[in-house]
Amino acid sequence: MTATTNRQFKLAARPVGLPKRTDWEFVTAPVPEPGPGEVLVKSLYLSLDPAMRGWMNEGRSYIPPVAIGEVMRAGGIGRVLASNDPGIAVGDHVTGTLGIQEYAVLKGSQLTRIDPSVAPLPVFLGVLGMPGMTAYFGLLEIGRPQPGETVVVSGAAGAVGAVVGQIAKLKGCRVVGIAGGSDKCAYLTGELGFDAAIDYKAEDVKKALRQHCPQGIDVYFDNVGGDILDACLATLARHARIVICGAISQYNNTTPVKGPTNYLSLLVNRARMEGMVVFDYASRYGEAAREMAGWMKAGKLKHREDIVDGIETFPETLLKLFKGENTGKLMIRVAAE
Amino acid sequence: MTATTNRQFKLAARPVGLPKRTDWEFVTAPVPEPGPGEVLVKSLYLSLDPAMRGWMNEGRSYIPPVAIGEVMRAGGIGRVLASNDPGIAVGDHVTGTLGIQEYAVLKGSQLTRIDPSVAPLPVFLGVLGMPGMTAYFGLLEIGRPQPGETVVVSGAAGAVGAVVGQIAKLKGCRVVGIAGGSDKCAYLTGELGFDAAIDYKAEDVKKALRQHCPQGIDVYFDNVGGDILDACLATLARHARIVICGAISQYNNTTPVKGPTNYLSLLVNRARMEGMVVFDYASRYGEAAREMAGWMKAGKLKHREDIVDGIETFPETLLKLFKGENTGKLMIRVAAE
Repeated sequence: MTATTNRQFKLAARPVGLPKRTDWEFVTAPVPEPGPGEVLVKSLYLSLDPAMRGWMNEGRSYIPPVAIGEVMRAGGIGRVLASNDPGIAVGDHVTGTLGIQEYAVLKGSQLTRIDPSVAPLPVFLGVLGMPGMTAYFGLLEIGRPQPGETVVVSGAAGAVGAVVGQIAKLKGCRVVGIAGGSDKCAYLTGELGFDAAIDYKAEDVKKALRQHCPQGIDVYFDNVGGDILDACLATLARHARIVICGAISQYNNTTPVKGPTNYLSLLVNRARMEGMVVFDYASRYGEAAREMAGWMKAGKLKHREDIVDGIETFPETLLKLFKGENTGKLMIRVAAE
Repeated sequence: MTATTNRQFKLAARPVGLPKRTDWEFVTAPVPEPGPGEVLVKSLYLSLDPAMRGWMNEGRSYIPPVAIGEVMRAGGIGRVLASNDPGIAVGDHVTGTLGIQEYAVLKGSQLTRIDPSVAPLPVFLGVLGMPGMTAYFGLLEIGRPQPGETVVVSGAAGAVGAVVGQIAKLKGCRVVGIAGGSDKCAYLTGELGFDAAIDYKAEDVKKALRQHCPQGIDVYFDNVGGDILDACLATLARHARIVICGAISQYNNTTPVKGPTNYLSLLVNRARMEGMVVFDYASRYGEAAREMAGWMKAGKLKHREDIVDGIETFPETLLKLFKGENTGKLMIRVAAE
């Protein structure tokens, strides 16, 4: 081990609206020593996810908030530098909640070994990581699409949305993606094989949905909330299922969350709206990863990562998510593989 | 047949907010003659239901709107005065969509014969009618309460809510009703056996829910929408089910419907919100009616009707629903049995 310092981003204040530089403290700490059963990991890639914004807020949620003064929570991929866990060896690649820092010490049980021969390392934060698992279980277990049905996904060029749409295609559905900008839309229909894409920045979403979903929406996978959720509610088919995965349009609100005005469409259409948290499916991650790795190998499931270099860019890189500037899985490369 | 005139309420204008007298036309028409396969029915009781407000609005819903100039749609109970349907005899009691009028002609196939020896006639508009069916199928098929779970129902002293709560008690649940006023609350806990009642006009509903539902809400049967739906969303247990049956607080809005601000609680709690329309269960009404009639006979399912005399009172009587002035099933007695 050559480095002796560990640069970290700690939460300094609870953000109001979009997180600012001053909501963070960028500090240098000593590289920690692993205790009994613990492992020292050097961060290679750190995952930036919309859910992180929620973790910065106080209040009850599906996971406790990050405390003020605590290293910001984040998933990551790293290489093992030292290990007191017999199941993990120096040089292994692992994934776990490393936090926004260059080095992390975790218990061996909190880490999962990954095999770089299966896929490039960044893919383990995308299709084979939390976003892929979220897409897989949210769509298949909550959305339950049937062949021939129409599936709509928002945030469609993002890490979760792109996988949702591609799995829906694999299941024989008509797939419509909603994304911001013509480049993202071209990516959806050109590279990912979506049947249609709606550019919410340039089009009337409600009108476009009517055009592209003449039989109505059977499954809507919602990553964004807000007006797009309302537009989808207005276009439901009977017995539609809405998967509530996230609400990125609302995470930086300084006003109350916009509830879905058109929710009574659930009544008219005998439809349901259901929330999901990926952690509930942890015991089945392996099963999903094997199936998705097979699809990737067969060329049926494409992936794209948006990789930004340097841990010091964290505060600004995170904002790309909320400004819709990323296509594919956003992450920071902390160190070369 | 002695009467020769048929007093009717026709929809004169689409109401903005609460329906006014001038939104109706009260007319006198000749008593119609039944054609082949048709039946002439003398209205005895006409049902007033919150859903009627929705039928007055233009726009796509689960049923077409009432046209301007059309007799207002309403369920009712009547006695057969003349019949060209071999399955229905003069003197039979029937239920069907009679409309707000003293006499109706319908096809025999649009009427259901009822047996006055099973229950008093008004009960066929309440527990054994649409409200009872709505409660039964909405709770059991969508809410799916399990013994020991906590069930909350709003509009709890109304025709649907009172049945929901009592069935939930029969299924071994802890039941909390939300209603307006101390009389209604006393009725819920005193007569109907609810475990607790919350007076939304006098109490902080969110605080009271926390007190009465220490383990959170497993099933919320929503008849009202608005702030009470939001308070319940804030108190969900994990894997909760919300039955969207109606939203009486929103039906007379002159501003857009208030969407549930706290809908992301569905995500946090892996909960679902699902709409229901009773007509979907029409093939099973008989089964439900038999079971509920058995519970009534055993004294386990109580009923109360709020009966107002005189068809001419219709515009004002209807408003009782939206002002929360009725306890039990609201109806108009048009003529003596």
